[in-house]
Amino acid sequence: MKINVNGKITGPDEACISVFDRGFLFGDSIYEVSLTYDGVLFKIEEHLDRLWQSASHLDMPIGISRKQLTYQMLKTLKELNEKRAYIRVIITRGEGKIGLDPALATKNNLVIITKKLEENPTWWYDSGVEMIIASVLRNPKESMDPAVKSGNYLNNVLAFNQAKKQGAFDAIMLNQDGLVTEGTTSNIWIVKGKKLITPPLATGLLEGITRKTILEISKNSKIDVSETDFTPEVLKDADECFLTSSTKEVVPITKIDGISVGSGKPGPMTARLHSLYKSHIQEYTNSQRGAQGKISEDKS
Amino acid sequence: MKINVNGKITGPDEACISVFDRGFLFGDSIYEVSLTYDGVLFKIEEHLDRLWQSASHLDMPIGISRKQLTYQMLKTLKELNEKRAYIRVIITRGEGKIGLDPALATKNNLVIITKKLEENPTWWYDSGVEMIIASVLRNPKESMDPAVKSGNYLNNVLAFNQAKKQGAFDAIMLNQDGLVTEGTTSNIWIVKGKKLITPPLATGLLEGITRKTILEISKNSKIDVSETDFTPEVLKDADECFLTSSTKEVVPITKIDGISVGSGKPGPMTARLHSLYKSHIQEYTNSQRGAQGKISEDKS
Repeated sequence: MKINVNGKITGPDEACISVFDRGFLFGDSIYEVSLTYDGVLFKIEEHLDRLWQSASHLDMPIGISRKQLTYQMLKTLKELNEKRAYIRVIITRGEGKIGLDPALATKNNLVIITKKLEENPTWWYDSGVEMIIASVLRNPKESMDPAVKSGNYLNNVLAFNQAKKQGAFDAIMLNQDGLVTEGTTSNIWIVKGKKLITPPLATGLLEGITRKTILEISKNSKIDVSETDFTPEVLKDADECFLTSSTKEVVPITKIDGISVGSGKPGPMTARLHSLYKSHIQEYTNSQRGAQGKISEDKS
Repeated sequence: MKINVNGKITGPDEACISVFDRGFLFGDSIYEVSLTYDGVLFKIEEHLDRLWQSASHLDMPIGISRKQLTYQMLKTLKELNEKRAYIRVIITRGEGKIGLDPALATKNNLVIITKKLEENPTWWYDSGVEMIIASVLRNPKESMDPAVKSGNYLNNVLAFNQAKKQGAFDAIMLNQDGLVTEGTTSNIWIVKGKKLITPPLATGLLEGITRKTILEISKNSKIDVSETDFTPEVLKDADECFLTSSTKEVVPITKIDGISVGSGKPGPMTARLHSLYKSHIQEYTNSQRGAQGKISEDKS
């Protein structure tokens, strides 16, 4: 593991942050998680776009340029020196006198955590995973917009904990209207006949970068895809169901609340999309390798 | 300032926490804020009760006994050596592999922040403060219960920020039904004729310790007090309005969204309650001084 705290790269034991940091005190921070494929940082521009969007939602100034942040990310990954790496970028509002007023902190803290990323277990893709519908509802947009990837993640922790207690892999969360929003760290998709469906952003969810990619890939492959709301009943009655996330890619969901979805086995559309997604990864890494190598050499 | 991190007391610059702490990553922490009057820690038992309740809501084990925690709090205050002190106790779920699963951390981190507490500005009590009704709604109980005093405080930060931008002192937050819940770090009260009213716990708010004390004091003084829901319209039309919090005590609210409340000046019921509250503080500190002195000497 290599950790970068405000430009200083250390091992995990030395990486610490002040107890006055607002990320620690209030969860007043934003973050992104990505990974590398064969040493190439995946979808970096999209992650930076979303990081800046999260900051804007929270009215949080970011005191580092995109170029400088990209350089710090690539520099940390270079020190880690792993072909397949996990990278988490956290920007907090900084430290100051204790109080809710954001103006009490004037200088962000930047933390970049990198580690070797183990391969995901093959059983996820072979047999699919079991989810529950959490009784904890997803934060509504009017309170804490799920579109913001922030350090306030207890809502999701509580839902995950319910899944864990029931022996499931993870939880699917509903909004106040009883509609499916997202997983605790993933987006949710269903297949009904030949139709591919995922909930729209207005339902209250994070716009996943893998979600966006799957939407594009589907359209390009002439798959009948739409962003449409659905209830847990429709979800359970789907022919196929799967989740998407940057680190997990495309994972079939074969059981929900103990009941089999469709055939109870990963379906053909899920397999096709994962295969298309993998081709997309290959194309991306091939096209970006040269450019990223150059940025990591050039601090200017 | 004196900061206690897992039993080690230092100055503010050395007090740090791992970037793998779940309090930092997810706001997966609980906390309490109290203060001392003339060197006596106020309402310590009530604060510890609530801390344990917050932990229970989050299914978070606390690996320290009440007695040991009390000892650590008093020890830190003793090193600070101020008659009037602020004390913030933070317990996180601890550190571990990064992931939502609470089981990834097995040992809490304990942080106690103490500092000299300046006297509150007298103008708060003399002329009253101006509040706004925030458009950011308070987190609903079904998502993130406001009864839990946790490290997920962005909801309140966003509301406070709205107040700041409008030049107000602080914000009052509504629930999804449009009913008044609480301030960003206080409870809200109105006076209508001879009736004293505060929203009930079911509305979705933190059960303030000062709120509880004011309810008791009012009942003992035969004041007609009730826990009843009200809308912002009723609030703005009240004869008097005030907020309560551990550090701010009883503060008159004389303007809401730019409009004067009642006479536009602090009212007689507010003044009477603050006076009764001050007497209560005096009685409390006199009765507890000896007992707390003993605990801080005895680690056993």
